[in-house]
Amino acid sequence: MSFDRLQQKIDEMKNPTVVGLDPALEHVPPEILDKHIAEHGETLQAAAQAVLEFNEGIIDAVHDVVPAVKPQSAFYEALGPDGVAALKMTCDYAKTRGMYVILDGKRNDIGSTASAYSTAYFGKVKVGGREISAFDVDALTINAYLGSDGVLPFLKTAVECDKAMFALVKTSNPSAGELQDRFIGDDRMYTVVGDLLEKISRETIGRYGFSRVGAVVGATYPEELEFLRGRLKHTFFLVPGYGAQGGAAADVAHAFDKDGRGAIVNSSRGIIAAWKKTGAGYKESARAEALRMRDELRRVVYA
Amino acid sequence: MSFDRLQQKIDEMKNPTVVGLDPALEHVPPEILDKHIAEHGETLQAAAQAVLEFNEGIIDAVHDVVPAVKPQSAFYEALGPDGVAALKMTCDYAKTRGMYVILDGKRNDIGSTASAYSTAYFGKVKVGGREISAFDVDALTINAYLGSDGVLPFLKTAVECDKAMFALVKTSNPSAGELQDRFIGDDRMYTVVGDLLEKISRETIGRYGFSRVGAVVGATYPEELEFLRGRLKHTFFLVPGYGAQGGAAADVAHAFDKDGRGAIVNSSRGIIAAWKKTGAGYKESARAEALRMRDELRRVVYA
Repeated sequence: MSFDRLQQKIDEMKNPTVVGLDPALEHVPPEILDKHIAEHGETLQAAAQAVLEFNEGIIDAVHDVVPAVKPQSAFYEALGPDGVAALKMTCDYAKTRGMYVILDGKRNDIGSTASAYSTAYFGKVKVGGREISAFDVDALTINAYLGSDGVLPFLKTAVECDKAMFALVKTSNPSAGELQDRFIGDDRMYTVVGDLLEKISRETIGRYGFSRVGAVVGATYPEELEFLRGRLKHTFFLVPGYGAQGGAAADVAHAFDKDGRGAIVNSSRGIIAAWKKTGAGYKESARAEALRMRDELRRVVYA
Repeated sequence: MSFDRLQQKIDEMKNPTVVGLDPALEHVPPEILDKHIAEHGETLQAAAQAVLEFNEGIIDAVHDVVPAVKPQSAFYEALGPDGVAALKMTCDYAKTRGMYVILDGKRNDIGSTASAYSTAYFGKVKVGGREISAFDVDALTINAYLGSDGVLPFLKTAVECDKAMFALVKTSNPSAGELQDRFIGDDRMYTVVGDLLEKISRETIGRYGFSRVGAVVGATYPEELEFLRGRLKHTFFLVPGYGAQGGAAADVAHAFDKDGRGAIVNSSRGIIAAWKKTGAGYKESARAEALRMRDELRRVVYA
């Protein structure tokens, strides 16, 4: 099962880290961008090719010590169709290097539209007599505001194609609480959403006890993280907000179960833009920061 | 202002309709798909080119009687980067025919990621010394579960580039109520979300009294539609669920203010797949259905 494969990779590397590939152009070393501009002019194609080269370098630098990558779709969409092609090639490259690929797109819709999204990222589209994958990632982030109609079409395709997803539950941003913390009866909204996800996914639990519908729970709210870990026993957590957004290793420790399982912690800028602080090459800088983060997480998760 | 332009087009045509361009391949006449397969083989490129030809035909058939189109991003993403290129070309073509373009992507994120989405769809990205638009549509659908942090970056770019958005408030699907109808204090969640959107957008109100942050409110819940129309006085409504999903003209009438303004009603399959019911050509069938819907809406909105 998809999350079993992820947990196994995490266990093998003793590293519950996912590297966020959020290649805003300011994070790409200028010499890479300049090289592609020299070839293709000041175009989105040049930018997209620079992003792809940058991502491949990051993947090469971390693939043997980090189990997963999480490309953030927005940064590729910002470069138009060429950027989306670079996104696809980034996902494909990460898979050839053995990494688990979580596409962060926070997609959401209902019925045939939700099915089209799940076909795009999990399944195959039929053209004439041939079935073709558009993206084929391991997991996708989704947003559950539409209710179970907005999750079940993704889950159906995930079961058919052995994929998984993470739905937003308690996000890491300062205003997350404006809606998510409000009380519905005796429970906060994030609890109501989390309970709904547990309920609709309970037939899909794998060997480590987690279903195909995970949850995004921010590192910046450690008490809520601890509460939700206790409540949502079959939910794998994707934890943003470590590092740049202020979450510390002691905070994210709450995301893991007693066996040190059931969560993966994201770092984006902290790793991919480490070169801006070190002054060294971007690959060495990313690897050094990934190893530092791994060692820091090991101390709190596997202690 | 972006919604002023939309309202003006609606007033000129006396037609508050948007045609949803949701080109699932089963809605594309087989002879169009076969022609592109003959040229490019059974590939996503062939499918994407068939979709583009189909969309251009629909746009040609309705552009003088319908003010707006709403491509649904999922159906293009399902065809990979080639599909996303067809999406961009569809948006560009609709603009050259004078139509207002609402991209239905239900995007959502925070901070620099939300800014990247708004750059993708509203703004320009800087590559070397040049600023380039990736998509440049008139309005985008978004999802506000992340709170104001997830809306304000879109609003900032919308103000800078004269664009607008529609956030999900009360969606048209059967399970919409699982979360959206729950009580938070004395108000249902959809009201809390709607109030939040009114509050954060009140500095952006245009000449017809509507802000740059509209709301998606389904035709399938006419009582809620009437309640929200009364409550959210500065919010332009995008109304899905008419036709195929069961919403009738009398239901959607509640979406409009006393002057018959402030809403636009979507029909997707009902128009683009009308040829399957009529047995006639897809363009004539789409135009005939668009005219029928226009006349039906005119009777209830401008009566």
